[in-house]
Amino acid sequence: MRETQLIQKIREMSNTGGGSLMLGIGDDAAILRPDSRQDLVFTSDLLLEDRHFTRQTYSPAEIGHKALARSLSDLAAMGAEPVFCLVSLAIPADLAASWLTRFYKGLLALAAKYNCALAGGDLARFEKIIVDVMCCGRVPRGKALLRSTAKPGDSIYVTGKLGKDWRRNRRPEPRIEAGIALRRLGVRAAMDLSDGLSLDLPRMCLESQVSAEISADLSEQALHGGEDYELLFTASRKIPGRIAGLPITKIGLMTAGHPGRVLFQGRPLEPRGFDHFATSD
Amino acid sequence: MRETQLIQKIREMSNTGGGSLMLGIGDDAAILRPDSRQDLVFTSDLLLEDRHFTRQTYSPAEIGHKALARSLSDLAAMGAEPVFCLVSLAIPADLAASWLTRFYKGLLALAAKYNCALAGGDLARFEKIIVDVMCCGRVPRGKALLRSTAKPGDSIYVTGKLGKDWRRNRRPEPRIEAGIALRRLGVRAAMDLSDGLSLDLPRMCLESQVSAEISADLSEQALHGGEDYELLFTASRKIPGRIAGLPITKIGLMTAGHPGRVLFQGRPLEPRGFDHFATSD
Repeated sequence: MRETQLIQKIREMSNTGGGSLMLGIGDDAAILRPDSRQDLVFTSDLLLEDRHFTRQTYSPAEIGHKALARSLSDLAAMGAEPVFCLVSLAIPADLAASWLTRFYKGLLALAAKYNCALAGGDLARFEKIIVDVMCCGRVPRGKALLRSTAKPGDSIYVTGKLGKDWRRNRRPEPRIEAGIALRRLGVRAAMDLSDGLSLDLPRMCLESQVSAEISADLSEQALHGGEDYELLFTASRKIPGRIAGLPITKIGLMTAGHPGRVLFQGRPLEPRGFDHFATSD
Repeated sequence: MRETQLIQKIREMSNTGGGSLMLGIGDDAAILRPDSRQDLVFTSDLLLEDRHFTRQTYSPAEIGHKALARSLSDLAAMGAEPVFCLVSLAIPADLAASWLTRFYKGLLALAAKYNCALAGGDLARFEKIIVDVMCCGRVPRGKALLRSTAKPGDSIYVTGKLGKDWRRNRRPEPRIEAGIALRRLGVRAAMDLSDGLSLDLPRMCLESQVSAEISADLSEQALHGGEDYELLFTASRKIPGRIAGLPITKIGLMTAGHPGRVLFQGRPLEPRGFDHFATSD
């Protein structure tokens, strides 16, 4: 099958999303007509075979779902509503055209749920499956949630349940509705938990130039497990116990100590989450 | 070296681009404040080790340059001015931190030339070098050049020289200025030549539902060689002999025949360019 035919097939499967996308798949680039009352947010995430998944444990549809979910989770962390995505995909020559169809079905089912148009991307042959998904979202001007705006005295919260077993959670749900609700509630800072609380909370503290104290009694898995795709956020006032159908748990407090330091049970918390770049040397 | 340190290093090397980028590297997503007088265009391109380059023949800076140049070339084809890029990069564990620095130096030198901010991306470990660059550009509202708007009777032109030896051309120059100039001249249709004229011209014809006749005496290399990164465009009126410092050559005429068919020396032109997905079956 030739590239032109494949692109035509993907184009036929694709949704066109909201009204702001003027041109999707088929030209050198997609065209968006922006609304100046809104800011646009952009993120990209790689999903690599034998690093983030294996072909034995993930179906093509699950790979498509997960590749998009990772990027959508970043939009959720900004309190953004999805607009469109670009999908760059490389696959081995031994995968049949039906593999591609099933991959895009999984990706497009999730995209449709959040009204995210598939606007383009790239296709190539490679010896392993490589997916990079870029997502664009929109927020009212100046209202994006940041990780750099937490203040000493803020309470720290998480959505949902931490420490999920991601081997059983092959279709993680991006917390888009919760992110939008948090933005409307006016919370102070937010980020998504992709690498584990013990790595991600220090990152938020460093960006915000604050310390944190975890007061909740959290399991090892809740502290260090990666790929939770829940939202971590801080607020200066009381937050409802449930937001967008998810339980909200207060886990601690931002403090004025050494930027980036996190205390758990009175001791510095050792970062043991998933650092994509940690080397043994 | 940990991911946080690496990201900090890349952040320090990065330019911040024009004034519309509100937030770059460091949060879950980058933030752009759009101008409603402009349309935004988006494209992404994969660059894969041992498929598009080898470590033996390309320096880290050349890989960085080429990865960005491929995406910028798509912006050029739309007549767009670059705004920002996201870079998703996976590299083997045996590459030193200095490899990354040199890669980003090559990429950022080209980005600076066209005022394209590095706004974010992703970093991962993988056994081979994988780069996916997403570029965003801007054009005055409704003015993006398309490949679907050619009309029978249009003359067909190319910028620069076709059939360059890409083994000697490891830092291809995206035709950004030429693309902007063509858009201002009001040409009818445009695309970039990345896979070779014999593949790319039929694609333009198919999108525009026209045929083409090549009248110029072109070499095999000019017809079928990939990675020229020149612009292919059509116009209904006379075009200057030089645009943005590049010679402009008329190579033929759009006609009303079978959509997608291209004639060369009176016979159908066989597509022999670089089809990323062509299979032997």
